[in-house]
Amino acid sequence: MSNPTAAMLVIGDEILSGRTRDANMYYLAGELTAAGIDLREVRVVSDDSEAIIAAVQALSAAYNHVFTSGGIGPTHDDITADSIAAAFGRSIDVREDARSLLEAHYKKSALELNAARLRMARIPEGAGLIENPVSVAPGFVVENVYVMAGVPSVFKAMVESILPQLTGGAPLISETLRINRGEGDIAGPLGEIAASYPQLSMGSYPFQQRDGKYGANVVIRGGDSALVAEAMAKLQAAFAE
Amino acid sequence: MSNPTAAMLVIGDEILSGRTRDANMYYLAGELTAAGIDLREVRVVSDDSEAIIAAVQALSAAYNHVFTSGGIGPTHDDITADSIAAAFGRSIDVREDARSLLEAHYKKSALELNAARLRMARIPEGAGLIENPVSVAPGFVVENVYVMAGVPSVFKAMVESILPQLTGGAPLISETLRINRGEGDIAGPLGEIAASYPQLSMGSYPFQQRDGKYGANVVIRGGDSALVAEAMAKLQAAFAE
Repeated sequence: MSNPTAAMLVIGDEILSGRTRDANMYYLAGELTAAGIDLREVRVVSDDSEAIIAAVQALSAAYNHVFTSGGIGPTHDDITADSIAAAFGRSIDVREDARSLLEAHYKKSALELNAARLRMARIPEGAGLIENPVSVAPGFVVENVYVMAGVPSVFKAMVESILPQLTGGAPLISETLRINRGEGDIAGPLGEIAASYPQLSMGSYPFQQRDGKYGANVVIRGGDSALVAEAMAKLQAAFAE
Repeated sequence: MSNPTAAMLVIGDEILSGRTRDANMYYLAGELTAAGIDLREVRVVSDDSEAIIAAVQALSAAYNHVFTSGGIGPTHDDITADSIAAAFGRSIDVREDARSLLEAHYKKSALELNAARLRMARIPEGAGLIENPVSVAPGFVVENVYVMAGVPSVFKAMVESILPQLTGGAPLISETLRINRGEGDIAGPLGEIAASYPQLSMGSYPFQQRDGKYGANVVIRGGDSALVAEAMAKLQAAFAE
């Protein structure tokens, strides 16, 4: 497939400690698939500068786009912006355009733009800002890395800000057949059909039914809807009850 | 902290395509934290042999334990066992002890142990088997890598099989204070308290309330419950309403 490739980097101790169940990865994966961008890898690392720098450098070199979530707030454990700057060898400081956004926002509220909040205007040299319609403090983009907030409502709003600017490939067509047999019965015929359609990706995702019996959802994905439909017809014929 | 470290590798196109929301990572993270094992990193890769091999080698070298989920079923896209064998330069074939488990299981059911199902007895040379009380086909362990199924009920059962054998550190104590103020107001005092307890980890996890105002859960974690309680008392005093 010639669709653009992407990776996501989730920065957050709260996911690794089991305190929070991920929502941003699930959301982004769905949005990228719909936009025809091929999410190939996700990494979750803790609020640790060395871990963030190593992951950003590896993912930025390997994929067309990298999306990060988390660690851009005002508290001491928010070290993403500094880590991204370090990953690309760029300086970082409070930037006037970001400060102006925050000043205007806090002037309207009863809140003070104190030193902690001003940290959210620290932007790596040469980065573009990502609009935050929810809580104003911006995300930013450095080279091919889009740095966004971890709060799901803000992450979602930022993704909505940037997605239209990204060059998506053709959306992947996906069709699913639910088969109420165990994968062991499905595997032979499915393998043959998969081998005869090298342009398509076919995945088998088993589930256990309430009565304890196994079934599987077989998903066919590809860029060519006619080809997906043709393969799906063969699959249905092979597994007709 | 001197607790054992761990990483998880989720193998599955269904997570990266946004089709399925992760459950195994959330489950494992909670179990490891309770067992005093420090989950440092998670990677999600697709059903791609090169990607699996590279991730397994990197994580196995960097952490004490690695846990994988997914890709050990009978269908053509189940390539985890072969990829793990390749990652460690081991041969792989149907192994008699695994075949016996499957034979006994399928003899009791009306299902045939066909070529596809027999693939689930392919085990890398020298690996130990991981019991699967749900659907019999075993997981396995090679060096420090525990290879388990992706179906959540089976993954959970396999984790329960292996966890008692792992040398856990002291369980991490975790206390949370919900503060109904924005992180910008919390950051200053929190940063000072965090700096005075270098043995503890303090994280701030913002949320948006129904009325649109921001608050944050501040979580203090550490191995020494008295120290956690002392720091929590300071935090409560600093943010008394």
